[in-house]
Order: sequence, then C-alpha cells, then structure tokens
Amino acid sequence: SAPSVLVPIATGVEEMETVIIVDVLRRAGARVTIASVGEAAETETWVECSRGVRIAADARLGDVAETETFDMIALPGGMPGATNLAKCAVLTRALERQLERQKTVAAMCASPGVVLAPRGFLDGRACTAHPAFVKDLPSDASAEGRVVIDGDVITSRGPGTAIEFALALVERLFGAEKAREVAGPMVLP
Amino acid sequence: SAPSVLVPIATGVEEMETVIIVDVLRRAGARVTIASVGEAAETETWVECSRGVRIAADARLGDVAETETFDMIALPGGMPGATNLAKCAVLTRALERQLERQKTVAAMCASPGVVLAPRGFLDGRACTAHPAFVKDLPSDASAEGRVVIDGDVITSRGPGTAIEFALALVERLFGAEKAREVAGPMVLP
Ligand SMILES: [Cu+]
Repeated sequence: SAPSVLVPIATGVEEMETVIIVDVLRRAGARVTIASVGEAAETETWVECSRGVRIAADARLGDVAETETFDMIALPGGMPGATNLAKCAVLTRALERQLERQKTVAAMCASPGVVLAPRGFLDGRACTAHPAFVKDLPSDASAEGRVVIDGDVITSRGPGTAIEFALALVERLFGAEKAREVAGPMVLP
Repeated sequence: SAPSVLVPIATGVEEMETVIIVDVLRRAGARVTIASVGEAAETETWVECSRGVRIAADARLGDVAETETFDMIALPGGMPGATNLAKCAVLTRALERQLERQKTVAAMCASPGVVLAPRGFLDGRACTAHPAFVKDLPSDASAEGRVVIDGDVITSRGPGTAIEFALALVERLFGAEKAREVAGPMVLP
C-alpha cells in the first residue's frame, strides 16, 4: 500500500510549513496522518498555528504513535510550535524508534534545532535549519543548503523552502519521477 | 487601524494557497478574516480543502460580507473550491461592491478564470491564472506573468507562486519596504 507519513503538530507550528508538507505528500499519493501533540490533544484534535490559522488533526499522537509505524515522520517548524513538539515524550520516543528502524525523520525551520538537536539526532549529520536556529545545530557546516539530506534525516529552512522540502520527501518515498510529476502543476519558480 | 483582508474559502479550496495568503498577510500586520462560503457555512465554520486538510473559518461570509468593508478580498484557488466560490451570490455581490469602491480584488490559480472571468471582472485587464485555467481568461496576453497587477485586480498562478502573490498583496497594502521585511525571514528561493 501507499507510503505512510506522520506529521505531528502542536500549538504554534507554522501553518504554511504544515500544510505544504501535507498537501504535497498527498498529491504524490502518500497516506498522511496529521497528529496533534500536547495538552490540547487531551481534549480536542484541532490546533491553533503560529499565525492563528486553526487546523484539524486527523488523530491524536498518543492514539497512533505506539500502535502504528510510519515510513516517514515529518516535522513542521514555527514557534512556539517546535518547543511544544520538543516537550512531547511520546513524540521523542517515536522519533527514536523511527531512526532505530532506519526510517526517515524530516524536520524544518525551528524543529531541527529545537526538536532534533537536543536529543542528539543530528550529531555527526549534515543538516540545516531556519537561519535564526542554526545556532542550535551541532554544526553549521551544511546550514546554507535549502534542503539537506543525510541518510535517514532530511532538514530544511523555512516557508520559502517548504515546497522544495516536501518534494524531497516525495522523492525519498516515491522516486524522482513522481517528484517531478507533482512539481509540474504547482508552477514553481 | 491595520488594513483588513477578507479571504473567502469553500469546500475544495487549495489549502496551501489559502494558508500562504493568510499567514503572509498576518505577518505583515493585516487583519485577515477567513470566511466560509456555501452550504457548509449554514451549519459550521470548518472547511475541508482540496487535499483533505480541514481549516477553521473565522466567520461565515454571510455574517460579515454585508456589514463590513475590507481593503482587499483575496481568493485562493483549488478545485472544486473555485467552483464553490463562484456559486456563492453573497461573494459575487461582495466582489462587485469591492471593485465599485475601487478596492483590491485578488485571485489565484483556478479562481481568476472560474470566479472572476464569468462576471466580467477581468474584461480588458491584464491577468493570469493556473496554466490549466488560462483558457477561461478573456485574454492570455499576460498569462505568463507569475503575479499580474492591473489596477484594482491582482492575479496569480498556483502553489509555487503563492508566496510571491501574498507578498504583492502585502506591498499593495503596506508598501514595498514592509514586503521586503516580511520576505526576509521566509528564506525565499
Ligand atoms: Cu518557520
């Protein structure tokens, strides 16, 4: 069946980054689950993003993270969204298991520095982040890359790189031809 | 007070285009109202977009269109979203009044051809649309432009032009310096 992708969201994630990741992966045919993280998830499945757009989650992270496996976990950035993602123990365990299973973890904007770096997931890896969060990476050697791929970890920078990032995720799951097919009708620069 | 923008949405609008327009305008400081259109609006303010992302409206169009005026009305595209926007008589009247008042109407992707063109709003104007919808424009003379400005009407093409489109809307409302200020942290190509 189609590759599966988990997109965890929390209060204050960047809505452009969230929606671009989900939409582009769905255009490719991925089964994408938007899963809410944190306090709000206890009572509801919608999340207020960084600029006030409210997005409905498809599930609560706690209901899917332990029982399902995903071919990819992709994290949007935004603040305080990335901090809220970093605080979630269920997400941290899911990311650990994902890398142990040699499956893809992807993160952009604030999340490489705020969610992945403190857990050591970026140690020894080429990676990037939003310019304001490069200081939180273990190394800035690859920080100028708009999308940086190192084995099972794919990172990127901000809303203006989000479509390129999402297409790299499509290429990882479906190959380069599908990525070109999805890119065509989007009228990229 | 800050410039006001109405962003009408309907079932099947493109979620990337919707969220990019709203988010970038809010980064600039605009007061943006996401307003739901059509059948669903009678009972709820949640709208399911073209790739299944559900977004909350801030209001129902019928509750604000007749009582409030906006400095700009900006339409996302997506199908069948644009068709659903075109079917809404309240929206059609709001667009008519907007142009009579010499205020800005902006539309992208399917919406220039599907919402604006049939009402004559693009007659004699330079305009563009998604490549698949250029056939619905009164003329394709300016269709290669990624963002086309002709007086009170601003049009654009697809998800890959949405940030440029949104920044043109920021420039219209706040000037070029604000548009550059908002663009900076987004890490554009
Ligand atoms: Cu961001």
